[in-house]
Amino acid sequence: MKQKIWSIIEDNTTLEGRIFDYFIQVLILLSLIAFSLETLPNNSERTINFLNAFEVVCVIVFTIEYVLRIYVSKHPFKYIFSFYGIIDLLAIFPFYLQAAVDLRGLRAFRVFRIFRALKLVRYNRALQRIHLAVKIIKEEIVLFFIITLILIYLTSCGIYFFENEAQPELFSSIFHSLWWSIVTLTTVGYGDVYPITAGGKIFTFVVLIIGVGIVTVPAGLAASALSKAREIEQENFDLKNQSKK
Amino acid sequence: MKQKIWSIIEDNTTLEGRIFDYFIQVLILLSLIAFSLETLPNNSERTINFLNAFEVVCVIVFTIEYVLRIYVSKHPFKYIFSFYGIIDLLAIFPFYLQAAVDLRGLRAFRVFRIFRALKLVRYNRALQRIHLAVKIIKEEIVLFFIITLILIYLTSCGIYFFENEAQPELFSSIFHSLWWSIVTLTTVGYGDVYPITAGGKIFTFVVLIIGVGIVTVPAGLAASALSKAREIEQENFDLKNQSKK
Amino acid sequence: MKQKIWSIIEDNTTLEGRIFDYFIQVLILLSLIAFSLETLPNNSERTINFLNAFEVVCVIVFTIEYVLRIYVSKHPFKYIFSFYGIIDLLAIFPFYLQAAVDLRGLRAFRVFRIFRALKLVRYNRALQRIHLAVKIIKEEIVLFFIITLILIYLTSCGIYFFENEAQPELFSSIFHSLWWSIVTLTTVGYGDVYPITAGGKIFTFVVLIIGVGIVTVPAGLAASALSKAREIEQENFDLKNQSKK
Amino acid sequence: MKQKIWSIIEDNTTLEGRIFDYFIQVLILLSLIAFSLETLPNNSERTINFLNAFEVVCVIVFTIEYVLRIYVSKHPFKYIFSFYGIIDLLAIFPFYLQAAVDLRGLRAFRVFRIFRALKLVRYNRALQRIHLAVKIIKEEIVLFFIITLILIYLTSCGIYFFENEAQPELFSSIFHSLWWSIVTLTTVGYGDVYPITAGGKIFTFVVLIIGVGIVTVPAGLAASALSKAREIEQENFDLKNQSKK
Repeated sequence: MKQKIWSIIEDNTTLEGRIFDYFIQVLILLSLIAFSLETLPNNSERTINFLNAFEVVCVIVFTIEYVLRIYVSKHPFKYIFSFYGIIDLLAIFPFYLQAAVDLRGLRAFRVFRIFRALKLVRYNRALQRIHLAVKIIKEEIVLFFIITLILIYLTSCGIYFFENEAQPELFSSIFHSLWWSIVTLTTVGYGDVYPITAGGKIFTFVVLIIGVGIVTVPAGLAASALSKAREIEQENFDLKNQSKK
Repeated sequence: MKQKIWSIIEDNTTLEGRIFDYFIQVLILLSLIAFSLETLPNNSERTINFLNAFEVVCVIVFTIEYVLRIYVSKHPFKYIFSFYGIIDLLAIFPFYLQAAVDLRGLRAFRVFRIFRALKLVRYNRALQRIHLAVKIIKEEIVLFFIITLILIYLTSCGIYFFENEAQPELFSSIFHSLWWSIVTLTTVGYGDVYPITAGGKIFTFVVLIIGVGIVTVPAGLAASALSKAREIEQENFDLKNQSKK
Repeated sequence: MKQKIWSIIEDNTTLEGRIFDYFIQVLILLSLIAFSLETLPNNSERTINFLNAFEVVCVIVFTIEYVLRIYVSKHPFKYIFSFYGIIDLLAIFPFYLQAAVDLRGLRAFRVFRIFRALKLVRYNRALQRIHLAVKIIKEEIVLFFIITLILIYLTSCGIYFFENEAQPELFSSIFHSLWWSIVTLTTVGYGDVYPITAGGKIFTFVVLIIGVGIVTVPAGLAASALSKAREIEQENFDLKNQSKK
Repeated sequence: MKQKIWSIIEDNTTLEGRIFDYFIQVLILLSLIAFSLETLPNNSERTINFLNAFEVVCVIVFTIEYVLRIYVSKHPFKYIFSFYGIIDLLAIFPFYLQAAVDLRGLRAFRVFRIFRALKLVRYNRALQRIHLAVKIIKEEIVLFFIITLILIYLTSCGIYFFENEAQPELFSSIFHSLWWSIVTLTTVGYGDVYPITAGGKIFTFVVLIIGVGIVTVPAGLAASALSKAREIEQENFDLKNQSKK
């Protein structure tokens, strides 16, 4: 019996396993769409009732699935405290607590359950490659992250110095200037805050020429680390083939 | 006879073939310009008449070309259902249907016929390299695509939570917030929607620092895959030369 | 005599040559600053007179230099029609024509003369590397350029279709929509034009997810080609050293 | 005695050294936060007094630290004029001068002291790699920097030519147009200045297609140089291991 349930829930090489997996994935997608629909401002009462009913069905299915996963697991606690275990719990417990606290917003995290779908098929190797790439460049990414934060902080101090007098409401403190810094250095540039003094504009000129490059380096690093990870994978594959011969 | 037509239409090593190809390409460009001119708001009646007449000429030429291509093709159905076959059909059939339905907008797809011009000359190898590069990174691109979509979804949920009360008209639902997410994460930043609450700004700060890097990784991946494709091409070329010796 | 002048003008290994080069470079920079100052709206008459006088001095010096360069050159016509020869001419002839036509704007091209300064010192090899990199990726760059243009055209047609009715003044034709396309796909996003209909926003969503990556690939390509060029340079250098032994 | 103090201040392998380092780092972070809080517009008198008192404490601690570092240093002048020595001095001397000149803004540079924390732990190697990468691409970065400046200058001249008449206030001189150029070429696009004439828009179209790629190349260069630096590090590591055997 336990074996049978295990083969349905955890094993996706059997027909029942595949059907179960696709069923759960489709339900997750539908429940995310339902969650988004609920936020629409002018829903009719009928729509609201239907969405509530659908949410009850989803939570029941997800709860059964969660209990069964614990039941068939060899190390239940390992599953409960694993990434997927926590995501699975996040997908259901806000519902049970809603009488006490309103945590329905947490339902958005169900979106992470979609990753399990990726494990299904051929993306497992690509995920491993990303994992390897992250390991290769972890130090550089952390360093650039710190450099970026320092750059944003210094930029905020500088623009505060130049623009505070001219625009006291938009650049009223270094904290307010941080908003300008991040929007400028990531090149989003909404246009709600921008320097108007000559000093502030010259400062921005210098910051943009130097800063934009620094902020975009990590993406390039990630790309080259992924190429490297692919090469390493290929080498390991070649080595295995050689040793087989 | 069939052989002669084939050499004109499909073969671009002969003089007639080249002239035919250039003639068709120029006509495509002119028909695209005519299509764009038609959308101008204050065309005089004379201009409209001229553009309509020119369109009739274009459709006649493209129809004759289409019929001839089917006629000389060894496997007509293979051509009809190929990428270029469909594009060639798209270039003419809206005209014949315009009495019934207004599909003139589809004429814009004639632009794809320009790709055939690239096949002509020396870009064939570069196209093959791009094709190979796409094959190398297909999995990662799909993965990053899914990660990007998940990121956009979670960001939308987050900003909806922070900004809905302060700006109920701009962030009126998660669907409306999606617009903000895509415009922010791709760093376009039109400035029509942006957070105004402190919570929303801090949330955006965190999202931008983490998210912008993730969204721009695929471009870097594509670039390094193209380098890789060039290397593979070079190796194959070297191998061929060696085996010849 | 001719030899002497040559050693001053063309040879930058001698002291006189270096002094001459630095003098000309400083004069170019000053003349560019003077040109920019002239465009300031509220210049006093004294400033205008001074700037005019300085411009006359610059043109006299540049003219003498130009004539001398022709005089000492072994193949005068080769110099006159070379990149630097044309730039040198552009730097002076607008002045002589100003009675007839106002071409003073062309003086901005003096900025290209700065490149000659780069040849002086150690940037010569870096310039060669960039030259080699451009040769490596020329085909891909042209291809991506064409793909980008096609993408911009199709995007313009699409947004015109979605937004023309809602914003007939901003998206009044495909030509007007091109402005929106380029500003969006390069992620500049001024905020003067953006879609307001649901259809237009969804269309922009799709375009941004796919298009932004494509438009930024060439920069990544250029970067990896430059790395490749450095490797090739290194290999050639190693080969030379080996053959010497 | 001197030895003892040295082991606390400079050596971070001992327990006392680590405690001292973490204490100083936390104090730097707190003093930066205090500095930022001071700029808030509506601080109560109590808050201001508290922040002032805290600043006095910080300066006393940093002064003692600075004096001790000079005291234990073998080459005091080498330390004083080193990067960290200057940063350490910048962290305290504005306080002592504030009766005469208001240089409190310089306190923001304390943020650089955070780099010392990075030296502590495992980021030392990543810092060395970045150092090596900078050395590899120094020439290209300088070249692209100059090319970018030339591009910005020419773009400013161009847009001034097209837009000056239509928008004399925003594009009133080449210097004012520089602001538009940097905001556009880095794709920030605040939306405070943008071309409105057909000529200016077409010019921007061309500039964006060519220019955006050039401006973003250095980030890609940096990323590929960092990969190269990692490879070189790996090779050196392998060579050492081989020579040990």
